[in-house]
Amino acid sequence: MFAFLCGALILLAFEPGLSAAEVKFKYAIKEFSVPLDHFSFLNNTSFNIRYLYNDSYADKSNVKSPIFFYTGNEGDIEWFAQNSGFVWELADKLRAVVVFAEHRYYGKSMPFGSDTFNSSKPEHLAYFTVEQALEDYAMLITYLRDGRQLPVVAFGGSYGGMLSAWFRMKYPHIVIGALAASAPILQFPGLTPCEIFNRITTTVYETAYNANCSANIGKSWKAFETLAANDAGKKQLGDLFHLCDPIKNADDLNEFLDFLEDVYGNLAMANYPYNSTFLAPLPPNPVRQLCFYLKDLHQKDDDLIKSMASALAVYTNYTGTEKCVDYKYSKSGDTLDNKGWDIQTCNQMVMPFCSNSSDTMYRTKDWNLKDFTEKCYKKYQLTPKPYDIELRYGGNNLEAVSNIIFSNGLLDPWSGGGVLQAPNNQVHVIILPEGAHHLDLRQSNPLDPPSVVDARQREAAIIAGWINEA
Amino acid sequence: MFAFLCGALILLAFEPGLSAAEVKFKYAIKEFSVPLDHFSFLNNTSFNIRYLYNDSYADKSNVKSPIFFYTGNEGDIEWFAQNSGFVWELADKLRAVVVFAEHRYYGKSMPFGSDTFNSSKPEHLAYFTVEQALEDYAMLITYLRDGRQLPVVAFGGSYGGMLSAWFRMKYPHIVIGALAASAPILQFPGLTPCEIFNRITTTVYETAYNANCSANIGKSWKAFETLAANDAGKKQLGDLFHLCDPIKNADDLNEFLDFLEDVYGNLAMANYPYNSTFLAPLPPNPVRQLCFYLKDLHQKDDDLIKSMASALAVYTNYTGTEKCVDYKYSKSGDTLDNKGWDIQTCNQMVMPFCSNSSDTMYRTKDWNLKDFTEKCYKKYQLTPKPYDIELRYGGNNLEAVSNIIFSNGLLDPWSGGGVLQAPNNQVHVIILPEGAHHLDLRQSNPLDPPSVVDARQREAAIIAGWINEA
Repeated sequence: MFAFLCGALILLAFEPGLSAAEVKFKYAIKEFSVPLDHFSFLNNTSFNIRYLYNDSYADKSNVKSPIFFYTGNEGDIEWFAQNSGFVWELADKLRAVVVFAEHRYYGKSMPFGSDTFNSSKPEHLAYFTVEQALEDYAMLITYLRDGRQLPVVAFGGSYGGMLSAWFRMKYPHIVIGALAASAPILQFPGLTPCEIFNRITTTVYETAYNANCSANIGKSWKAFETLAANDAGKKQLGDLFHLCDPIKNADDLNEFLDFLEDVYGNLAMANYPYNSTFLAPLPPNPVRQLCFYLKDLHQKDDDLIKSMASALAVYTNYTGTEKCVDYKYSKSGDTLDNKGWDIQTCNQMVMPFCSNSSDTMYRTKDWNLKDFTEKCYKKYQLTPKPYDIELRYGGNNLEAVSNIIFSNGLLDPWSGGGVLQAPNNQVHVIILPEGAHHLDLRQSNPLDPPSVVDARQREAAIIAGWINEA
Repeated sequence: MFAFLCGALILLAFEPGLSAAEVKFKYAIKEFSVPLDHFSFLNNTSFNIRYLYNDSYADKSNVKSPIFFYTGNEGDIEWFAQNSGFVWELADKLRAVVVFAEHRYYGKSMPFGSDTFNSSKPEHLAYFTVEQALEDYAMLITYLRDGRQLPVVAFGGSYGGMLSAWFRMKYPHIVIGALAASAPILQFPGLTPCEIFNRITTTVYETAYNANCSANIGKSWKAFETLAANDAGKKQLGDLFHLCDPIKNADDLNEFLDFLEDVYGNLAMANYPYNSTFLAPLPPNPVRQLCFYLKDLHQKDDDLIKSMASALAVYTNYTGTEKCVDYKYSKSGDTLDNKGWDIQTCNQMVMPFCSNSSDTMYRTKDWNLKDFTEKCYKKYQLTPKPYDIELRYGGNNLEAVSNIIFSNGLLDPWSGGGVLQAPNNQVHVIILPEGAHHLDLRQSNPLDPPSVVDARQREAAIIAGWINEA
């Protein structure tokens, strides 16, 4: 549940990075050799990570020409390049070289090639950590600088934002600052209540159109269970929702309900004011669209479920071209990148999620580290280290940190795990009341709400200030 | 050459940590379990590091009682505890808990027990890095704090000082500040000229008594070679210097001359104004004592070498109880701790040393990374990473650093690789014109020069300030 920080890419038909925007942001695709293990002297193996490179904006006569360095996160780096238009726009304005670095174990940056996730070789996963990725970036920047004192600014959204913040914390001699957009660096055990993500999502659905939306969703869980109690109901469910795989048993039903929960989270994240293809092809303000179909409080299960089917299509078939809805992660959602993130949640990215049906639209679910650990070990032979991140990056204790912008949209369920108060005056907190998941990092759009336009201006000014100081 | 940051413990008869001072500083000896590898998920093995613990100074009713945490370096931690009296004195004054943590792979903190340095198991050395040691300390502090927000100050001298500085840089959420005494964090390739150590040492010998001292030493190399050109001369050399092993060939002679160079460096480091047993039992101002025997410029090799023999005894036999001088590292100096440091110079602690006979009292020697690398691989199957430290800890680029005191004595050859200029006003640089290697970290003594007394007062005030702010 909610395991995917950037949202689950749950439709096979949706191919990230192949949107029309790709034409716009151009780059050379390059490779850079990095040690498999930066931290021990056990083996000297290396492999290549990819990075995207564009120096067309840069003033080549400027010996202090800045580098904008996107600390790639859990996916193919081209996808992030196409969905982080602000980086390109600001590079144009401030005449910077643009680099998007691909995170090891994602995209084409596989340490063991197609054998990387071979489940019979769990030792392949040993070097899939935040620290190794940051070292990759530190080495790549050192190489790109080639001895020159070029100021480097880190950028990232979501997990990429966490990386950019941590990169500045640990390598302030390499990056002069970081824009960490929608970076939930506090979404770890003991730092943030586990129910916050679902509470925020509930609020978004309560307020997008009218409060019947979240009320209907809250009632729907029981309605689905009632309907699926017999075979005819199961078939009806499959037909109504155009499911690719029939619901045959309780496990299938549960998987379908989990899928719905993910959809609600994803839609809240991608609740942008204009058409987007970030997590799926979506209309503007997709939560409002979905909630439009749920504007009437349904008393009858039958009516409720029919409305839910219409509502869900906002996410699953906005283009009208999808043949069926693939709710089975175990089958379809298990792309390499999704698998990567699932693995990371089983080593360091241990983010507890829970919910209570009494104050959210979700089913009641507890978080249990022991069960989670067992599941991880069974799947990957990995034992999660839930306190690794806090130990290394300080949790709430950020007093010594400088030159980071933490931006969070209040429509974004991840904002609950974000840094919403500045620990000192060298850290900038920017709140976007009308922003979904790292909306500020996206290309500017005439439909951007004023708070986002304003945030980008502030971010640009702060970053320009860092560069001038350097 | 000069491979030992704290000086080579080259006399078998000298047992570190067993001085009279031991009676004074009391502690419980405890153990703490740490992961063998903090940074990968390859194995879940753990082992115990030792630490020394004393809470007798602490105000147990104070919920913000500070912890003084010595980041152990290359040796048995008891040795450092007994040679870092300032930590204890300040703990008494500021009512702090005192912890001295032993560095992995030293003392009794061996990851693979007596098999740790088994040369047929080079994989045992994989986890012998700065980063692993710092993580050990971060985990130990987290355990000791037990959820309480106790302010922790890191202390360290020499390599321990480097660790305390790096610890504050990377874990500012865990330590509020660090006293890094005589910490040559810039003694790495490309950051500091490789000849600086020997230049400073030469200056110390030029000025300790009179300039004939360094002039005699400078002339001695050729005199030794001339004398050792035949068998009678070799025997004479062995007799004059009371060598445990005879000089039989050119290799022996070279080893003896290397030994002399180390002695000069060690004496400069331990050039304290009072009796000490830090690197060997020594008189006050030992360089001056040695130079007293070399005060006349000798024209005849014979006279020169006889004077050298008397001079050297200041280091090798100040107690008058040594039977012979063991110049063969390959045999005697190869204690476990010395071996540990030699290994670290072959992975991350790549510190280039060179000298030129035209402007130092040393023989001309170049630094050659290729040769060094080959030697390391042959000895330990390790390939040195000479730029690891700069990549991770920033080299000269310390602008984002805060709350570190870098203290350096100008009599200390290691001061050449120290931080002598503050990058900002949150970093404090304290220069001790009359100080040898981390003299300020030692127990106070009536013979302390005023600059050291003064430095300790400033250090105490700065540290008290950090604690008050916390």
